[in-house]
Amino acid sequence: MDKAQIKESILGMGAKARAAAYALAVLDTDQKNAILHAMAAGLREHRRDILDANALDIAAAEAHGLTAAMLDRLRLDAPRLETMAAGVEQVAGLPDPVGEVLADWTRPNDIHFEQIRVPIGVIGIIYESRPNVTSDAAVLCLKSGNATILRGGSEAIHSNQAIAAALQSAGETAGLPENAIQLIPFTDRESVRVMAGMDQWLDVIIPRGGKGLIETVVSLARMPVIKHYDGICHTYVDKEADLAMAVAIVDDAKTHKPGVCNALETLLVHRDVAAEFLPRIAAVFLEKGVEMRGDPRTLAILGDAATAATDEDWDTEYLDLILSIRVVDTMAEAVDHINTHSSRHSDCIVTADMARAESFMRRVDSACLFHNVSTRFSDGGEFGFGAEIGISTDKLHARGPMALRELTSYQYRIRGDGQTRTKCATT
Amino acid sequence: MDKAQIKESILGMGAKARAAAYALAVLDTDQKNAILHAMAAGLREHRRDILDANALDIAAAEAHGLTAAMLDRLRLDAPRLETMAAGVEQVAGLPDPVGEVLADWTRPNDIHFEQIRVPIGVIGIIYESRPNVTSDAAVLCLKSGNATILRGGSEAIHSNQAIAAALQSAGETAGLPENAIQLIPFTDRESVRVMAGMDQWLDVIIPRGGKGLIETVVSLARMPVIKHYDGICHTYVDKEADLAMAVAIVDDAKTHKPGVCNALETLLVHRDVAAEFLPRIAAVFLEKGVEMRGDPRTLAILGDAATAATDEDWDTEYLDLILSIRVVDTMAEAVDHINTHSSRHSDCIVTADMARAESFMRRVDSACLFHNVSTRFSDGGEFGFGAEIGISTDKLHARGPMALRELTSYQYRIRGDGQTRTKCATT
Repeated sequence: MDKAQIKESILGMGAKARAAAYALAVLDTDQKNAILHAMAAGLREHRRDILDANALDIAAAEAHGLTAAMLDRLRLDAPRLETMAAGVEQVAGLPDPVGEVLADWTRPNDIHFEQIRVPIGVIGIIYESRPNVTSDAAVLCLKSGNATILRGGSEAIHSNQAIAAALQSAGETAGLPENAIQLIPFTDRESVRVMAGMDQWLDVIIPRGGKGLIETVVSLARMPVIKHYDGICHTYVDKEADLAMAVAIVDDAKTHKPGVCNALETLLVHRDVAAEFLPRIAAVFLEKGVEMRGDPRTLAILGDAATAATDEDWDTEYLDLILSIRVVDTMAEAVDHINTHSSRHSDCIVTADMARAESFMRRVDSACLFHNVSTRFSDGGEFGFGAEIGISTDKLHARGPMALRELTSYQYRIRGDGQTRTKCATT
Repeated sequence: MDKAQIKESILGMGAKARAAAYALAVLDTDQKNAILHAMAAGLREHRRDILDANALDIAAAEAHGLTAAMLDRLRLDAPRLETMAAGVEQVAGLPDPVGEVLADWTRPNDIHFEQIRVPIGVIGIIYESRPNVTSDAAVLCLKSGNATILRGGSEAIHSNQAIAAALQSAGETAGLPENAIQLIPFTDRESVRVMAGMDQWLDVIIPRGGKGLIETVVSLARMPVIKHYDGICHTYVDKEADLAMAVAIVDDAKTHKPGVCNALETLLVHRDVAAEFLPRIAAVFLEKGVEMRGDPRTLAILGDAATAATDEDWDTEYLDLILSIRVVDTMAEAVDHINTHSSRHSDCIVTADMARAESFMRRVDSACLFHNVSTRFSDGGEFGFGAEIGISTDKLHARGPMALRELTSYQYRIRGDGQTRTKCATT
């Protein structure tokens, strides 16, 4: 297909998604849950089709020489498919955010105002290789009453098509409106460009993947984007910290799962406790093979155990067993460092002084601030949300872990008995 | 200045605004209110400077042949300046949204979560001729704890500079951080381009003005945009409507103030009441000089009192004494028409049947839905918000009338006693 045909095709999907969104918005919770259970059954019934499709993707990936790690992310098998289906059922068990009354009040002229939670409408999701995103994203959007247009990567195209088709067709047997879940069959850059431009059909676009993809979407999008750039997370060990607790928290944040966005990347230590704390945490890290890159004062304490950090280190998300370390004179210096270098995702203070913790929390401009808790808890599941569509590093609409509520908007419903501004104005 | 210098200058303002935002975020309510009172006094003290500056703008506007209406929007005098100062004091009297606890809960592992309202950070506002926006916008941003970068139009540049300077300097005497309110001295298109690109400094950009300006900002912006496109508002007169009430509401919505965004543009009438209702409302409109443009069934009832509507009419915001009228067979047809043509701003149903009103409200995808109330009440003041920065036709972050709360974000503050994911995970 040429560019014009791709554009026409995607715009057509947009119009169909809008119609589906209107139908979805009036489904009640029981109807949506019945659809979700039918979808879970559909994934199990179509197991063979999905695994066959996945085998095509795996064969193509092997032919293209993808790394073992990438192949593993792409690969589906019976247990993984069962996890996917169980995940759909789990979303059916979550509370429905739609219809919640967020506020209501009556004005002196007897006009009654209600602010009520409603679906956003049509959500576009652009993502890379992992095929389970197809199911996770579609299902969270459905539970929150939204239509979705999915655009996955080329590596997983057969898997994604099989999963989306299974969800849509099984869902329809339980009342899912047609075109509620659509997968774009194109995986070229042009399809991203068209999606990013069609603000008449997409109410929001959520890019999930590498920084290059997110940058492209941000620069092209005419509609709101909810995104997650880096996770450059800090832990500041204060002069009033319980140092044993600090060792446990810093160790956990760095080594529990270093490849994820809420892992620790930079450790800041107050000078008053640096000489005692740094050797203790360094002993743990040397044993676990964590590479330490320090500022001059850190090097003065740790000697050969660390290497010199460069300016670049303070802005790097390692996603690996590497840590940058800096000694600070004051908490204010730690706050400045974080506000300058943090990706505003999750930052932590370890201190036994409540007033200092409060001061830190009021001054650091990040989505999640932890006091005496590892940043690894920055996660929808650990927040108790039951699901997660991602973690936003933006400040508008949704911030931090995002689940069902973050896939909703609100609407004002205003009721009266004939009030006119001519006769009943209050201002 | 050349483009590179303009860019460097505006980026420098961005960095200073970020520093100001950190200082503003920790001011308490009393401090902010003291600053606001000092600002109001500052506007009064600098009355001469502001009016002299305004005289320069007026002289230039007259030389450029601006219309009388545009000159009136631009003109300041002593009473208008007093209204501006009183407006600043009024904002001091509004509740401070910052610090509100939106939710809090404790997880089984004793980690305590708090979701707390915080300022957004740095807000960019791009606006056209009316100089009072300089004061209104800066003051609402300040009360909600945000730094602002203002970029007004060339027509009002001297007035805007005088007002911003008076607010900043008077505010500083009461503790306003420096650079909290900055006005960009450039009024060319390049300054909009630079602002729209600096997502490292601006957390959100709010364009206020004509559709061309908003289109430009939307296509260039890398950060979230909160905007207000059209106000194409509908009123649907149902077959169960109290027709006397419907006449009063439709008349009010169309004629009370036709040049504003919440005025009525399209009237939809159920066929069962069209023959009775249309002549009654037409009699009112003929007397008030409202031009009526109808579909064929409307014309069959109204005869020469109306002219034929074209397809374009259904998508037109007249902002004038003109109304498009269509007869529909069913409420569903009215809902479809509205969802297709409305700007999702404000739409109304007039009916005595509560179930039909609820059905309408669940199906129409607009920010504000009115039942038996004129759409003219779609207004921050009439909502009881005490102020208004604008009305959003977007669906993310803020929808409908926006005031102080809509200029905030939130932050999670999470407290524990040493929990690590290694030992205390709940998922």
